[in-house]
Amino acid sequence: MAVKEESHRARQAQATKEQVAGAARVLFAEQGYVVTTIAAISEAARIPAQTIYSAFGNKPAILREISRLWIAEADTRRLAQESLALTDPVERMRSAAHWHTRQFETGIDVIRIYQEAARADQRMAAEMQRVWGAREHELALFLQSFAGQLAHDPQRSLDLFLACTTMEIYQLLVLDRGWPIAAYEAWLADTLVAQLLP
Amino acid sequence: MAVKEESHRARQAQATKEQVAGAARVLFAEQGYVVTTIAAISEAARIPAQTIYSAFGNKPAILREISRLWIAEADTRRLAQESLALTDPVERMRSAAHWHTRQFETGIDVIRIYQEAARADQRMAAEMQRVWGAREHELALFLQSFAGQLAHDPQRSLDLFLACTTMEIYQLLVLDRGWPIAAYEAWLADTLVAQLLP
Repeated sequence: MAVKEESHRARQAQATKEQVAGAARVLFAEQGYVVTTIAAISEAARIPAQTIYSAFGNKPAILREISRLWIAEADTRRLAQESLALTDPVERMRSAAHWHTRQFETGIDVIRIYQEAARADQRMAAEMQRVWGAREHELALFLQSFAGQLAHDPQRSLDLFLACTTMEIYQLLVLDRGWPIAAYEAWLADTLVAQLLP
Repeated sequence: MAVKEESHRARQAQATKEQVAGAARVLFAEQGYVVTTIAAISEAARIPAQTIYSAFGNKPAILREISRLWIAEADTRRLAQESLALTDPVERMRSAAHWHTRQFETGIDVIRIYQEAARADQRMAAEMQRVWGAREHELALFLQSFAGQLAHDPQRSLDLFLACTTMEIYQLLVLDRGWPIAAYEAWLADTLVAQLLP
């Protein structure tokens, strides 16, 4: 009974956190991370400010929860694992275009919020550096899986991969120029293959 | 005599403006456009604040002068004209990589200052939109010069050209990953040719 009660409470607490994160994400994206107050989030989420303080403590923690939910939604880890199972190098490279597109599609606003937070707050800048570092490490491992099949050395391959998957290109082609997401993904797949494979 | 005196004064006034613009550019880039005061610029440029107010009126006007000096230094217009004189499409496309690289090399800090100013000030945002619009128009004319020699329709060609010349790729490869500028220019030339020509 006590265990059941506890897990019910934990689920409820998580539901509250997600409700706060969802409302905060909209406000951060539309009005800016820096100017958005806990009071404004409280009003938008219809959750008392005191509950938000108890659940998160501060705005960076809310942003971390937004990020966690985004990564879960984009399902990048599973998609990246599936990529590694593909034996054909062209197919494997093309599949990387899929998880990158999925990441941008589900969370380019989250990256922008992080960028704004990092400009305003040195600790958030350090945190974003760590996240980018971890991403780079995963991409380096992904590229290692190609062994001798890449056109360039590991360093240049990674640089080119990062260049092709620059967020601003997604922003430009899909959000500013109106490309369908599938057209962007096809372009990215073709370009990664052309730039990285012999 | 009077004419000579006047042209001497005009030269002196221009020299003062350039001195202010030079000092302001460093402060804007290092400390931020929004937080930099005319008083701080006055101190760094060793020009009385009153003289700066008389010469410029406000910060946006200083930023415009910084931008004008940058464009003059990058010499983009002349380089673009030279491109148009090249008859071989591959050579003409490669030469565009040169003026783009030159623009970034001499003024990526100026673009960043504009971006910050645009985030803080709607009029600066509108001004930046106009500048980008003018750039797009010039690029569209440049691509028109290829007539039937491009791999895609004019719209897609322009989109791809803009994607390849995304400032963030220069930032990534040259400033973050340490590529020599010549290596970036060679990569950009190869990539523009591969993406835009059949």
